[in-house]
Amino acid sequence: MQPDKREDVLKRLAFIDGHLQGVRRMVEDDKYCVDVLKQTFAVRRAIEKMEQIMLDGHLHTCVVEGIKEGRDDQVIGELVDLYALANK
Amino acid sequence: MQPDKREDVLKRLAFIDGHLQGVRRMVEDDKYCVDVLKQTFAVRRAIEKMEQIMLDGHLHTCVVEGIKEGRDDQVIGELVDLYALANK
Amino acid sequence: MQPDKREDVLKRLAFIDGHLQGVRRMVEDDKYCVDVLKQTFAVRRAIEKMEQIMLDGHLHTCVVEGIKEGRDDQVIGELVDLYALANK
Amino acid sequence: MQPDKREDVLKRLAFIDGHLQGVRRMVEDDKYCVDVLKQTFAVRRAIEKMEQIMLDGHLHTCVVEGIKEGRDDQVIGELVDLYALANK
Repeated sequence: MQPDKREDVLKRLAFIDGHLQGVRRMVEDDKYCVDVLKQTFAVRRAIEKMEQIMLDGHLHTCVVEGIKEGRDDQVIGELVDLYALANK
Repeated sequence: MQPDKREDVLKRLAFIDGHLQGVRRMVEDDKYCVDVLKQTFAVRRAIEKMEQIMLDGHLHTCVVEGIKEGRDDQVIGELVDLYALANK
Repeated sequence: MQPDKREDVLKRLAFIDGHLQGVRRMVEDDKYCVDVLKQTFAVRRAIEKMEQIMLDGHLHTCVVEGIKEGRDDQVIGELVDLYALANK
Repeated sequence: MQPDKREDVLKRLAFIDGHLQGVRRMVEDDKYCVDVLKQTFAVRRAIEKMEQIMLDGHLHTCVVEGIKEGRDDQVIGELVDLYALANK
Protein backbone atom coordinates (compact mmCIF):
# COMPACT_ATOMS: atom_id res chain seq x y z
CA MET A 1 0.00 0.00 0.00
CA GLN A 2 1.23 3.53 -0.71
CA PRO A 3 2.40 5.19 2.56
CA ASP A 4 -0.30 7.88 2.52
CA LYS A 5 -3.03 5.30 1.90
CA ARG A 6 -1.65 3.12 4.71
CA GLU A 7 -1.70 6.05 7.12
CA ASP A 8 -5.29 6.84 6.13
CA VAL A 9 -6.34 3.20 6.55
CA LEU A 10 -4.67 2.96 9.98
CA LYS A 11 -6.47 6.13 11.13
CA ARG A 12 -9.77 4.69 9.95
CA LEU A 13 -9.03 1.39 11.71
CA ALA A 14 -8.41 3.29 14.97
CA PHE A 15 -11.70 5.14 14.50
CA ILE A 16 -13.59 1.91 13.73
CA ASP A 17 -12.03 0.29 16.80
CA GLY A 18 -13.20 3.19 19.00
CA HIS A 19 -16.67 2.97 17.47
CA LEU A 20 -16.78 -0.76 18.24
CA GLN A 21 -15.79 -0.11 21.87
CA GLY A 22 -18.73 2.28 22.05
CA VAL A 23 -20.99 -0.50 20.77
CA ARG A 24 -19.62 -2.84 23.46
CA ARG A 25 -20.41 -0.29 26.18
CA MET A 26 -23.93 0.13 24.79
CA VAL A 27 -24.48 -3.63 24.97
CA GLU A 28 -23.01 -3.83 28.51
CA ASP A 29 -25.28 -0.95 29.60
CA ASP A 30 -28.23 -2.76 28.03
CA LYS A 31 -29.11 0.07 25.65
CA TYR A 32 -32.09 -0.28 23.33
CA CYS A 33 -31.28 -2.83 20.56
CA VAL A 34 -32.50 -0.52 17.79
CA ASP A 35 -29.94 2.09 18.86
CA VAL A 36 -27.16 -0.51 19.06
CA LEU A 37 -28.05 -1.79 15.57
CA LYS A 38 -27.86 1.73 14.13
CA GLN A 39 -24.31 1.94 15.45
CA THR A 40 -23.23 -1.46 14.10
CA PHE A 41 -24.63 -0.43 10.70
CA ALA A 42 -22.42 2.68 10.91
CA VAL A 43 -19.39 0.53 11.79
CA ARG A 44 -19.98 -1.66 8.73
CA ARG A 45 -20.39 1.43 6.58
CA ALA A 46 -17.03 2.75 7.89
CA ILE A 47 -15.36 -0.57 7.08
CA GLU A 48 -16.81 -0.47 3.55
CA LYS A 49 -15.44 3.04 3.06
CA MET A 50 -11.99 1.85 4.21
CA GLU A 51 -12.22 -1.10 1.81
CA GLN A 52 -12.89 1.28 -1.07
CA ILE A 53 -9.71 3.18 -0.23
CA MET A 54 -7.65 -0.03 -0.11
CA LEU A 55 -9.20 -1.28 -3.34
CA ASP A 56 -8.55 2.06 -5.02
CA GLY A 57 -4.88 1.85 -4.04
CA HIS A 58 -4.65 -1.78 -5.10
CA LEU A 59 -6.15 -1.08 -8.54
CA HIS A 60 -3.85 1.89 -9.20
CA THR A 61 -0.68 0.04 -8.18
CA CYS A 62 -0.65 -3.78 -8.07
CA VAL A 63 -3.24 -4.32 -10.77
CA VAL A 64 -1.70 -1.86 -13.23
CA GLU A 65 1.81 -3.19 -12.56
CA GLY A 66 0.65 -6.81 -12.74
CA ILE A 67 -0.96 -6.31 -16.12
CA LYS A 68 2.03 -4.37 -17.48
CA GLU A 69 4.25 -7.27 -16.38
CA GLY A 70 1.96 -9.78 -18.13
CA ARG A 71 0.47 -11.26 -14.96
CA ASP A 72 -3.07 -10.49 -16.18
CA ASP A 73 -4.57 -13.79 -15.14
CA GLN A 74 -3.34 -13.48 -11.57
CA VAL A 75 -4.40 -9.90 -10.81
CA ILE A 76 -7.71 -10.13 -12.72
CA GLY A 77 -8.51 -13.49 -11.14
CA GLU A 78 -7.97 -11.97 -7.70
CA LEU A 79 -10.35 -9.10 -8.47
CA VAL A 80 -13.06 -11.46 -9.70
CA ASP A 81 -12.69 -13.55 -6.54
CA LEU A 82 -12.82 -10.45 -4.34
CA TYR A 83 -15.98 -9.19 -6.01
CA ALA A 84 -17.70 -12.55 -5.62
CA LEU A 85 -16.63 -12.63 -1.96
CA ALA A 86 -17.84 -9.08 -1.28
CA ASN A 87 -21.32 -10.00 -2.51
CA LYS A 88 -21.61 -13.34 -0.73
CA MET B 1 -18.57 -8.24 -24.57
CA GLN B 2 -17.22 -11.53 -25.92
CA PRO B 3 -19.94 -13.37 -27.98
CA ASP B 4 -20.21 -16.33 -25.58
CA LYS B 5 -20.53 -14.00 -22.56
CA ARG B 6 -23.18 -11.95 -24.37
CA GLU B 7 -25.18 -15.06 -25.15
CA ASP B 8 -24.94 -16.16 -21.52
CA VAL B 9 -26.01 -12.72 -20.29
CA LEU B 10 -28.98 -12.61 -22.70
CA LYS B 11 -30.13 -16.05 -21.52
CA ARG B 12 -29.90 -14.87 -17.93
CA LEU B 13 -31.82 -11.69 -18.75
CA ALA B 14 -34.63 -13.79 -20.30
CA PHE B 15 -34.71 -15.95 -17.17
CA ILE B 16 -34.77 -12.90 -14.88
CA ASP B 17 -37.56 -11.39 -16.96
CA GLY B 18 -39.63 -14.57 -16.63
CA HIS B 19 -38.96 -14.62 -12.89
CA LEU B 20 -40.15 -11.00 -12.63
CA GLN B 21 -43.38 -11.86 -14.53
CA GLY B 22 -43.93 -14.56 -11.91
CA VAL B 23 -43.53 -11.94 -9.19
CA ARG B 24 -46.09 -9.72 -10.94
CA ARG B 25 -48.61 -12.57 -11.07
CA MET B 26 -48.03 -13.27 -7.36
CA VAL B 27 -48.75 -9.61 -6.55
CA GLU B 28 -51.87 -9.57 -8.79
CA ASP B 29 -53.12 -12.78 -7.13
CA ASP B 30 -52.48 -11.17 -3.73
CA LYS B 31 -50.04 -13.85 -2.57
CA TYR B 32 -48.52 -13.63 0.90
CA CYS B 33 -45.95 -10.78 1.01
CA VAL B 34 -43.30 -12.96 2.64
CA ASP B 35 -43.45 -15.35 -0.31
CA VAL B 36 -43.30 -12.48 -2.81
CA LEU B 37 -40.28 -11.00 -1.02
CA LYS B 38 -38.44 -14.34 -1.16
CA GLN B 39 -38.89 -14.26 -4.94
CA THR B 40 -37.71 -10.66 -5.35
CA PHE B 41 -34.62 -11.53 -3.28
CA ALA B 42 -33.99 -14.39 -5.73
CA VAL B 43 -34.38 -12.01 -8.68
CA ARG B 44 -31.80 -9.64 -7.19
CA ARG B 45 -29.47 -12.56 -6.57
CA ALA B 46 -29.80 -13.59 -10.22
CA ILE B 47 -29.01 -10.04 -11.35
CA GLU B 48 -25.91 -10.00 -9.12
CA LYS B 49 -24.74 -13.27 -10.64
CA MET B 50 -25.20 -11.81 -14.13
CA GLU B 51 -23.27 -8.70 -13.09
CA GLN B 52 -20.36 -10.89 -11.98
CA ILE B 53 -20.24 -12.49 -15.40
CA MET B 54 -20.23 -9.08 -17.13
CA LEU B 55 -17.60 -7.73 -14.76
CA ASP B 56 -15.45 -10.83 -15.28
CA GLY B 57 -15.57 -10.29 -19.05
CA HIS B 58 -14.91 -6.57 -18.69
CA LEU B 59 -11.84 -7.14 -16.49
CA HIS B 60 -10.36 -9.76 -18.79
CA THR B 61 -10.83 -7.66 -21.93
CA CYS B 62 -11.35 -3.88 -21.69
CA VAL B 63 -9.39 -3.41 -18.46
CA VAL B 64 -6.39 -5.45 -19.58
CA GLU B 65 -6.38 -3.80 -23.03
CA GLY B 66 -6.86 -0.32 -21.57
CA ILE B 67 -3.90 -0.70 -19.22
CA LYS B 68 -1.69 -2.17 -21.95
CA GLU B 69 -2.58 0.85 -24.10
CA GLY B 70 -1.70 3.24 -21.26
CA ARG B 71 -5.30 4.25 -20.44
CA ASP B 72 -4.81 3.20 -16.80
CA ASP B 73 -6.54 6.21 -15.30
CA GLN B 74 -9.68 5.73 -17.36
CA VAL B 75 -10.25 1.99 -16.84
CA ILE B 76 -9.19 2.02 -13.17
CA GLY B 77 -11.28 5.11 -12.47
CA GLU B 78 -14.31 3.36 -13.97
CA LEU B 79 -13.78 0.32 -11.74
CA VAL B 80 -13.47 2.45 -8.60
CA ASP B 81 -16.69 4.29 -9.53
CA LEU B 82 -18.50 1.02 -10.21
CA TYR B 83 -17.46 -0.45 -6.87
CA ALA B 84 -18.61 2.66 -5.00
CA LEU B 85 -21.92 2.53 -6.90
CA ALA B 86 -22.45 -1.18 -6.21
CA ASN B 87 -22.16 -0.54 -2.47
CA LYS B 88 -24.31 2.56 -2.33
CA MET C 1 -51.36 -6.38 0.55
CA GLN C 2 -53.44 -3.21 0.96
CA PRO C 3 -54.96 -2.17 -2.43
CA ASP C 4 -52.99 1.10 -2.65
CA LYS C 5 -49.71 -0.70 -1.85
CA ARG C 6 -50.47 -3.36 -4.45
CA GLU C 7 -51.11 -0.73 -7.08
CA ASP C 8 -47.85 1.02 -6.20
CA VAL C 9 -45.95 -2.29 -6.33
CA LEU C 10 -47.47 -3.20 -9.72
CA LYS C 11 -46.49 0.20 -11.13
CA ARG C 12 -42.96 -0.28 -9.87
CA LEU C 13 -42.83 -3.79 -11.35
CA ALA C 14 -43.86 -2.38 -14.75
CA PHE C 15 -41.13 0.24 -14.47
CA ILE C 16 -38.51 -2.35 -13.46
CA ASP C 17 -39.58 -4.55 -16.36
CA GLY C 18 -39.14 -1.66 -18.80
CA HIS C 19 -35.73 -0.90 -17.30
CA LEU C 20 -34.71 -4.51 -17.76
CA GLN C 21 -35.80 -4.44 -21.42
CA GLY C 22 -33.52 -1.43 -21.80
CA VAL C 23 -30.67 -3.46 -20.33
CA ARG C 24 -31.39 -6.27 -22.80
CA ARG C 25 -31.22 -3.86 -25.73
CA MET C 26 -27.93 -2.47 -24.42
CA VAL C 27 -26.47 -5.98 -24.31
CA GLU C 28 -27.81 -6.83 -27.78
CA ASP C 29 -26.32 -3.58 -29.14
CA ASP C 30 -23.02 -4.46 -27.46
CA LYS C 31 -22.90 -1.33 -25.32
CA TYR C 32 -19.95 -0.73 -23.01
CA CYS C 33 -20.11 -3.15 -20.03
CA VAL C 34 -19.53 -0.40 -17.50
CA ASP C 35 -22.65 1.41 -18.74
CA VAL C 36 -24.70 -1.80 -18.70
CA LEU C 37 -23.57 -2.53 -15.13
CA LYS C 38 -24.64 0.93 -13.98
CA GLN C 39 -28.12 0.16 -15.29
CA THR C 40 -28.34 -3.27 -13.64
CA PHE C 41 -27.28 -1.65 -10.35
CA ALA C 42 -30.17 0.80 -10.80
CA VAL C 43 -32.57 -2.08 -11.47
CA ARG C 44 -31.50 -3.80 -8.24
CA ARG C 45 -31.91 -0.53 -6.36
CA ALA C 46 -35.45 -0.19 -7.73
CA ILE C 47 -36.26 -3.75 -6.64
CA GLU C 48 -34.94 -3.00 -3.13
CA LYS C 49 -37.13 0.09 -2.92
CA MET C 50 -40.15 -1.98 -3.94
CA GLU C 51 -39.23 -4.58 -1.31
CA GLN C 52 -39.21 -1.87 1.36
CA ILE C 53 -42.75 -0.89 0.39
CA MET C 54 -43.93 -4.51 0.57
CA LEU C 55 -42.18 -5.07 3.88
CA ASP C 56 -43.64 -1.86 5.28
CA GLY C 57 -47.15 -3.04 4.36
CA HIS C 58 -46.48 -6.52 5.73
CA LEU C 59 -45.23 -5.19 9.08
CA HIS C 60 -48.19 -2.83 9.51
CA THR C 61 -50.78 -5.47 8.68
CA CYS C 62 -49.91 -9.19 8.89
CA VAL C 63 -47.27 -8.84 11.61
CA VAL C 64 -49.40 -6.65 13.88
CA GLU C 65 -52.48 -8.86 13.35
CA GLY C 66 -50.48 -12.06 13.83
CA ILE C 67 -49.07 -10.89 17.13
CA LYS C 68 -52.45 -9.63 18.37
CA GLU C 69 -53.87 -13.06 17.52
CA GLY C 70 -51.06 -14.80 19.45
CA ARG C 71 -49.21 -16.11 16.38
CA ASP C 72 -45.98 -14.40 17.51
CA ASP C 73 -43.71 -17.32 16.72
CA GLN C 74 -44.93 -17.60 13.15
CA VAL C 75 -44.79 -13.95 12.10
CA ILE C 76 -41.55 -13.20 13.97
CA GLY C 77 -39.92 -16.38 12.67
CA GLU C 78 -40.80 -15.33 9.11
CA LEU C 79 -39.19 -11.90 9.62
CA VAL C 80 -35.99 -13.41 11.01
CA ASP C 81 -35.80 -15.79 8.04
CA LEU C 82 -36.42 -12.94 5.58
CA TYR C 83 -33.68 -10.81 7.13
CA ALA C 84 -31.19 -13.67 6.99
CA LEU C 85 -32.17 -14.31 3.36
CA ALA C 86 -31.87 -10.62 2.40
CA ASN C 87 -28.27 -10.57 3.64
CA LYS C 88 -27.15 -13.86 2.13
CA MET D 1 -31.57 -7.77 25.51
CA GLN D 2 -32.10 -11.16 27.12
CA PRO D 3 -29.04 -12.08 29.31
CA ASP D 4 -28.01 -15.06 27.17
CA LYS D 5 -28.24 -13.00 23.97
CA ARG D 6 -26.21 -10.22 25.57
CA GLU D 7 -23.50 -12.67 26.59
CA ASP D 8 -23.42 -14.09 23.06
CA VAL D 9 -23.23 -10.59 21.54
CA LEU D 10 -20.40 -9.56 23.89
CA LYS D 11 -18.42 -12.69 22.99
CA ARG D 12 -18.90 -11.92 19.32
CA LEU D 13 -17.82 -8.31 19.85
CA ALA D 14 -14.62 -9.52 21.55
CA PHE D 15 -13.97 -11.84 18.61
CA ILE D 16 -14.65 -9.07 16.07
CA ASP D 17 -12.33 -6.76 17.99
CA GLY D 18 -9.55 -9.36 17.89
CA HIS D 19 -10.13 -9.88 14.18
CA LEU D 20 -9.87 -6.12 13.61
CA GLN D 21 -6.56 -6.00 15.54
CA GLY D 22 -5.32 -8.69 13.17
CA VAL D 23 -6.32 -6.50 10.23
CA ARG D 24 -4.41 -3.57 11.77
CA ARG D 25 -1.26 -5.69 12.10
CA MET D 26 -1.62 -6.81 8.48
CA VAL D 27 -1.80 -3.18 7.34
CA GLU D 28 1.16 -2.19 9.55
CA ASP D 29 3.17 -5.11 8.15
CA ASP D 30 2.20 -4.00 4.64
CA LYS D 31 0.53 -7.28 3.73
CA TYR D 32 -0.98 -7.74 0.28
CA CYS D 33 -4.16 -5.63 -0.05
CA VAL D 34 -6.17 -8.51 -1.46
CA ASP D 35 -5.47 -10.54 1.68
CA VAL D 36 -6.35 -7.60 3.93
CA LEU D 37 -9.62 -7.07 2.06
CA LYS D 38 -10.58 -10.72 2.49
CA GLN D 39 -10.20 -10.23 6.25
CA THR D 40 -12.24 -7.01 6.36
CA PHE D 41 -15.00 -8.78 4.41
CA ALA D 42 -14.95 -11.49 7.09
CA VAL D 43 -15.18 -8.83 9.84
CA ARG D 44 -18.25 -7.31 8.17
CA ARG D 45 -19.78 -10.75 7.80
CA ALA D 46 -19.23 -11.36 11.55
CA ILE D 47 -20.89 -8.03 12.38
CA GLU D 48 -23.87 -8.93 10.19
CA LYS D 49 -24.23 -12.26 11.99
CA MET D 50 -24.17 -10.44 15.36
CA GLU D 51 -26.81 -8.00 14.07
CA GLN D 52 -29.08 -10.91 13.16
CA ILE D 53 -28.84 -12.19 16.73
CA MET D 54 -29.69 -8.76 18.16
CA LEU D 55 -32.55 -8.31 15.72
CA ASP D 56 -33.88 -11.76 16.51
CA GLY D 57 -33.93 -10.91 20.23
CA HIS D 58 -35.48 -7.51 19.56
CA LEU D 59 -38.29 -8.99 17.45
CA HIS D 60 -39.12 -11.70 20.01
CA THR D 61 -39.22 -9.30 22.96
CA CYS D 62 -39.63 -5.53 22.37
CA VAL D 63 -41.62 -5.82 19.15
CA VAL D 64 -44.05 -8.43 20.47
CA GLU D 65 -44.48 -6.54 23.76
CA GLY D 66 -44.85 -3.20 22.01
CA ILE D 67 -47.61 -4.49 19.75
CA LYS D 68 -49.42 -6.22 22.63
CA GLU D 69 -49.32 -2.90 24.50
CA GLY D 70 -50.74 -1.06 21.47
CA ARG D 71 -47.51 0.73 20.53
CA ASP D 72 -47.67 -0.70 16.99
CA ASP D 73 -46.71 2.51 15.22
CA GLN D 74 -43.57 2.98 17.28
CA VAL D 75 -42.11 -0.53 17.06
CA ILE D 76 -43.09 -1.07 13.43
CA GLY D 77 -41.82 2.37 12.44
CA GLU D 78 -38.46 1.54 14.03
CA LEU D 79 -38.20 -1.71 12.06
CA VAL D 80 -38.99 0.02 8.77
CA ASP D 81 -36.34 2.65 9.50
CA LEU D 82 -33.78 -0.02 10.43
CA TYR D 83 -34.40 -1.95 7.24
CA ALA D 84 -34.03 1.17 5.10
CA LEU D 85 -30.82 2.02 6.97
CA ALA D 86 -29.39 -1.51 6.59
CA ASN D 87 -29.78 -1.27 2.81
CA LYS D 88 -28.43 2.23 2.37
